[in-house]
Amino acid sequence: MKLASYKDGSRDGQLVVVSRDLTQAHYASHIANRLQQVLDDWNFISPQLQDVFDALNAGRARHAFPFDPAQCMAPLPRAYQCVTAAAWPSHTALLQQATGMASESDRTNGPQMDQRAGDALLGAQDALHCATEALGLDFAAGVAVVTGDLPQDCAPERALDGVRLLMLCNSFTLRSLHSADASHGAAALQSRCAIAFSPVAITPDELGEAWAKGRVGLPLQCSWNGRKVGMADAGADMAWPFGQLLALLAKTRPVRAGSIVAAAPVSNAGVEKRGQWSWPKGFNSIAEKRAMETLQDGQAASDYLRYGDTVCVDMKNAAGQSVFGAMEQEMLV
Amino acid sequence: MKLASYKDGSRDGQLVVVSRDLTQAHYASHIANRLQQVLDDWNFISPQLQDVFDALNAGRARHAFPFDPAQCMAPLPRAYQCVTAAAWPSHTALLQQATGMASESDRTNGPQMDQRAGDALLGAQDALHCATEALGLDFAAGVAVVTGDLPQDCAPERALDGVRLLMLCNSFTLRSLHSADASHGAAALQSRCAIAFSPVAITPDELGEAWAKGRVGLPLQCSWNGRKVGMADAGADMAWPFGQLLALLAKTRPVRAGSIVAAAPVSNAGVEKRGQWSWPKGFNSIAEKRAMETLQDGQAASDYLRYGDTVCVDMKNAAGQSVFGAMEQEMLV
Repeated sequence: MKLASYKDGSRDGQLVVVSRDLTQAHYASHIANRLQQVLDDWNFISPQLQDVFDALNAGRARHAFPFDPAQCMAPLPRAYQCVTAAAWPSHTALLQQATGMASESDRTNGPQMDQRAGDALLGAQDALHCATEALGLDFAAGVAVVTGDLPQDCAPERALDGVRLLMLCNSFTLRSLHSADASHGAAALQSRCAIAFSPVAITPDELGEAWAKGRVGLPLQCSWNGRKVGMADAGADMAWPFGQLLALLAKTRPVRAGSIVAAAPVSNAGVEKRGQWSWPKGFNSIAEKRAMETLQDGQAASDYLRYGDTVCVDMKNAAGQSVFGAMEQEMLV
Repeated sequence: MKLASYKDGSRDGQLVVVSRDLTQAHYASHIANRLQQVLDDWNFISPQLQDVFDALNAGRARHAFPFDPAQCMAPLPRAYQCVTAAAWPSHTALLQQATGMASESDRTNGPQMDQRAGDALLGAQDALHCATEALGLDFAAGVAVVTGDLPQDCAPERALDGVRLLMLCNSFTLRSLHSADASHGAAALQSRCAIAFSPVAITPDELGEAWAKGRVGLPLQCSWNGRKVGMADAGADMAWPFGQLLALLAKTRPVRAGSIVAAAPVSNAGVEKRGQWSWPKGFNSIAEKRAMETLQDGQAASDYLRYGDTVCVDMKNAAGQSVFGAMEQEMLV
């Protein structure tokens, strides 16, 4: 099942069911208006939405209309909990290697996880507004889940059962505020300025065999100003799959329906050959690109995002079809 | 105006208007069911609630019933954004003094501000469940605001205008996970295990002159197992009043209606006399108590919360009446 929230001037949008091939949509207003309502009462409401989805795919839906990703808010436009997790250690390792910082044992401490504001999540084509380019706006493309209710201190297997929906995400950070010195004060909070989501959220069964053990085994396509820069496998090298991330989140408190965990950036390990490093799968954040430049050439050459820059994120299945719809964020004043 | 959310088995409760003296209540279901609805459309809905409040205070409300704080969820049971802020530097200074850590200039970095999960906020008499006492559960009693919409990068004066409601809060932390080593990984997130709120939320005008320049100039009463331990003035020594805290929060992104900023713990500076320190206003977190013991006796003697321990927080106006209703949290397995 694929779901989206259409812009209608309200804060939560209007829930629509989207066909598997992303060509057709159908309002769900006879069932539920807002996605949070569905998550609050999943077992009762989701089968009704599934019926609409089945009819839509079979061409039997009575009031179907062409699906337009430009009309999409984030599938869940407001979330009571939104957490980012650095679930690919090769990302952290690359940044540490480039800065020459003593490599902390991230496998011991577990993945870095941070609460984010859930009050203003960005839709698939919403622009990012930034006061100056000097703030160093960076992106981090990844994969996110939306949960049902999870009991406190549940096991990873139980937590994984609580995954209701999957989305693509792009988490934006102001690097100038995100330095080590900024771990005190409000700077770390201010650096996490925005997070955007794909046009549609999908139930895990839509991924078929590509959804395995809490990982999405498909390449994440990332483009910067129209140039392909990343094509990392989102399943490979994910040291903390979603079951583990959710269990960590629920370790000391229950997690309630509609919580988002966004794992980003997707990162595949580099390859060393005769002392030279290369990264055949590219990068999903500029910080990674700069780390690669530092390791290869001794210094970082790439700037962070500039006004007018665009970042696109998409993921295609084995048949070459976009699974979640494409995201495109532009940086504006 | 005073508002509460009564437990009714739903996730957001049932909105009620509460009389100024906290004795009577009236369902608001003919106007709005959930507090978030009111915040989403404040200018239209709040005057209607004000009419009910006026009728209730005048004894003219037709379906009033006795108000029972035990029936209260948090006034806003789920929030799309919930931030804690260490707005009283005397708290941070005391902890640094006791640990002998080099005193970082917190006035330069601004107050520590952290995003919290908003999916499961605790009501005024909800218990806290903790797996073991060894986690070192601590409290931090303070004052919180709920905002309307704030534009990105707004001035503190504009931000202060966006304060819709005030509440008392008690922010709970697992000290064993909150050490300096835990700044990486999921431990910092896991340490912020719960936050509880007073039975009612009030509009700023209910404080009269005690609400001045973004500070609440009334003593916060804090009891631990029935013994009064804190009576700090919430207005004094608050270096970052709410206008400034909200402006910091909105610095790099817009803040949407229903965001909570909880400033805690309230702390008044200690007094030094002939090399001996004393804290006549007591403490609002056990970490402070332990720091005081360290400075006076060379070592911390107090344990963190134990099963069955209770923490009560209340605030009375000049006439001796509770403004927000009393909170009481008990620690349970």
